[in-house]
Amino acid sequence: SRSINLAVIPGDGIGQEVVAEGLKVLSAVLPQDVKLETKEYDFGAQRYHATGETLTDADLDALKKHDAILLGAIGDPSVPSGVLERGFLLKLRFAFDHHVNLRPSKLLPGVATPLAGEPSIDFVVVREGTEGPYTGNGGTIRKGTEHEVATEVSVNTAFGVERVVRDAFARAQARPRKKLTLVHKNNVLTFAGHLWTNIFNKVAEEFPEVTTDYIHVDAATIYLVTDPGRFDVIVTDNLFGDIITDLAAAVSGGIGVAASGNINPSGEFPSMFEPVHGSAPDIAGQGKADPSATVLSVALLLRHLGYEAEAARIDEAVSADLAERTGKPARSTSEIGDALAVRVAG
Amino acid sequence: SRSINLAVIPGDGIGQEVVAEGLKVLSAVLPQDVKLETKEYDFGAQRYHATGETLTDADLDALKKHDAILLGAIGDPSVPSGVLERGFLLKLRFAFDHHVNLRPSKLLPGVATPLAGEPSIDFVVVREGTEGPYTGNGGTIRKGTEHEVATEVSVNTAFGVERVVRDAFARAQARPRKKLTLVHKNNVLTFAGHLWTNIFNKVAEEFPEVTTDYIHVDAATIYLVTDPGRFDVIVTDNLFGDIITDLAAAVSGGIGVAASGNINPSGEFPSMFEPVHGSAPDIAGQGKADPSATVLSVALLLRHLGYEAEAARIDEAVSADLAERTGKPARSTSEIGDALAVRVAG
Ligand SMILES: CC(C)[C@H](C(=O)O)[C@@H](O)C(=O)O
Ligand SMILES: CC(C)[C@H](C(=O)O)[C@@H](O)C(=O)O
Repeated sequence: SRSINLAVIPGDGIGQEVVAEGLKVLSAVLPQDVKLETKEYDFGAQRYHATGETLTDADLDALKKHDAILLGAIGDPSVPSGVLERGFLLKLRFAFDHHVNLRPSKLLPGVATPLAGEPSIDFVVVREGTEGPYTGNGGTIRKGTEHEVATEVSVNTAFGVERVVRDAFARAQARPRKKLTLVHKNNVLTFAGHLWTNIFNKVAEEFPEVTTDYIHVDAATIYLVTDPGRFDVIVTDNLFGDIITDLAAAVSGGIGVAASGNINPSGEFPSMFEPVHGSAPDIAGQGKADPSATVLSVALLLRHLGYEAEAARIDEAVSADLAERTGKPARSTSEIGDALAVRVAG
Repeated sequence: SRSINLAVIPGDGIGQEVVAEGLKVLSAVLPQDVKLETKEYDFGAQRYHATGETLTDADLDALKKHDAILLGAIGDPSVPSGVLERGFLLKLRFAFDHHVNLRPSKLLPGVATPLAGEPSIDFVVVREGTEGPYTGNGGTIRKGTEHEVATEVSVNTAFGVERVVRDAFARAQARPRKKLTLVHKNNVLTFAGHLWTNIFNKVAEEFPEVTTDYIHVDAATIYLVTDPGRFDVIVTDNLFGDIITDLAAAVSGGIGVAASGNINPSGEFPSMFEPVHGSAPDIAGQGKADPSATVLSVALLLRHLGYEAEAARIDEAVSADLAERTGKPARSTSEIGDALAVRVAG
C-alpha cells in the first residue's frame, strides 16, 4: 500500500492558517489506500526567539526522512532581516540541494489581473535554486565606517547551470508549445552570462524540438507586462528568478494564487513546496488569507510524488473556485479550504 | 554670452534618427543668446568593425571637453553581446563617474499603459551607476569545460552608496510628496544590504521631512504593477535599478517615452543623456522610431545645465503632443520632431 510521509512547517504569520487548509485539501483528494502521515515542525520566529535556533543539523536529519515538505511561510518583523531567510529558508534549499525552483504562472478564468485587455498567461519559471548571488559568498570590511566595502559574489558553475538548464528543456519539451526562454543579463554580467548562454546553447542541441529564445532580465520585465503570452518555459538564475517570479505572480492573479516547488529532482533529499507569498503578519490570525497558493503548492507536491490525477483534481478545483468568486462576498481562509476540499473529493 | 558645447553620439540603429530630432528640438527651444556648438562622434558598431575600437583614452579626452553628451543608442546584433555594452556604454559611465543614473517615470495623459484602471504614476528612480554587479569584477576558471566556474562580484562602498543616497534624499526633499523608497534585497544579499540600509537610515536623519520606506526588489516589481502611485523617489543599486526602470518605463507609457540621465553631480566630467530604449535594429532607418524619449532626455540635459524654463517647455510640448495622438494616424520620426520643435518655439 502507498504512503506519504509529510513534514509540515506552518511557520509564521498566515503560515499556520494556510497550511491547515492545504492539509485539509490533501486529505480530501488522496485515495483511501494512500496512508498520509504528517509531522509538524515548529521552525520560524517563535522558535528563534525561544532558542536562538533557526535550523540545526538534527532538524535537517529529521526532515530528511520525509517524502516531501509543505511550508506555509517563514518571516516576522520581530526578527532582523536576513536571519530567518538565510538561517532557515535558504539553508534548507542549499542543504537539500533544491536546485530546481519551479514557479508556474497561469492566469485563470475570472481572476483579476492588473494588466489591461485579456492577456493569456500560461508559463513556468524554472529558477536555479542553489547558486548565483544566493550562496552567501562575499563579505564586509571596515564595517560601519566611511571606508566600508561590502561584496556579494554570484557563483555559477557548469555543473549547477547545466542540470537546471537540462531540467528546463525537459519541461519545455513536455509542453504543447515547446518553447524555452533563457533570461539573464549576459551583456553586462559577461562571466556568468557566457557560462549560462554557452550551456543553454549546448543543451539545446539535445532538444531539437524545443524553440529557444534569449531575453535580458530588464527587457523580460517589459514583456511580462506587455506580452506575457510569449513565454512558455523560462529558465534563469537564482536572483533574476526571484525578481521575475514575483512580477509573474502579480500579473497572473497575484501572490494569493502563486505556488512554488523547491525541487531536488534526483530524490536524494525531500523537495519542499510553499506558496510564493510571505507570512503577511498584518493579516495573520484573522482568517483573511487566501489558502489557494498553498493548495496549489500541494498540487505541485502531489505531481512531484507521482500523484498526477490528484494534482490535476486540485488544479481544477482551484480554477473552478476562482472562476465563481466574482461578485460574491469574501470568504474566510477555512471557508475557501472547505469549498476546495468538497470539490476535490467530489 | 551663454553657450552649450555638446558632444553628440548618434550610435547605432535608430540612434541616428532620434538624435536628429532631439537636436532639432534643442535648437528650437534655446534662446537666441545661447550659442549651441555640437560635435558628432562615430562610436558604435561601425567604428568597432572598422577599427576594433569602442572608446579609447583619446576619445575620453575629447569627450571630457564638452558640457554634456547626448547619446542615441549603442548596440547591434553584428557585435557579440557585451562588447559595446562593457567597452563603450559602461566604460563611459565609469570613466566619467556617472554615479547618479536618473530615470523619471510619469504616465502622461492620453498615453497608453499596459495596466488596467487609470493608475497615477509619477516617480523618479535614482539608480547607482558606478558600483554593484556592474564593475566587471569576477572571472571565469576552466572556461568551456564541465568544471567551469564563473563569478560576478557586486562591489558596494560606503563612499559610493552614501553619495547616491544623499542625492536621492535631496531630490525627494525637493518634490511635493517628499518620499524616498530604498529598493534592495537586504534579506538575502546581507553584506551589501546592510551597507545600503545603514547608510540610508543614517542619511535619513539629515532629511527629517522626507518619509522613508524600504521594499525588497522582488516585491517592488509587484507594487510597480499593482500600486505604482505609492512611489515618489526610489533609490537603488545599479542592477536592481536597471531591472525596475525597464518595468517602470513599460507601465508608464513604454520605452518610447523613457528618458535618462547619467549624471556626474560634481560637474567634474560631462553628464550623458540618453533614451532608455536601445538601438532597435529591426525598425532602424524606416522613420518609425518615436523620438520622444530622446527629446525628453534633452530636457533632462537642459535641466542639468541650468536651463529649467527650456526644459519645462520641452516636457510640456511632449505632454501635449502625446495627449493629442489618440485616433490619429502614426507619424514618422521627423514629423514628430517637427511638431515638437514648433511647440517649444511657440
Ligand atoms: C524570502 C526570500 C529568501 C525568498 C528568496 O529570495 O528566494 C523569497 O523572496 C522567495 O522568492 O522565495
Ligand atoms: C545596455 C546596458 C549596458 C544598459 C544597462 O544595463 O545599464 C541598459 O540596459 C540600460 O539600462 O541603460
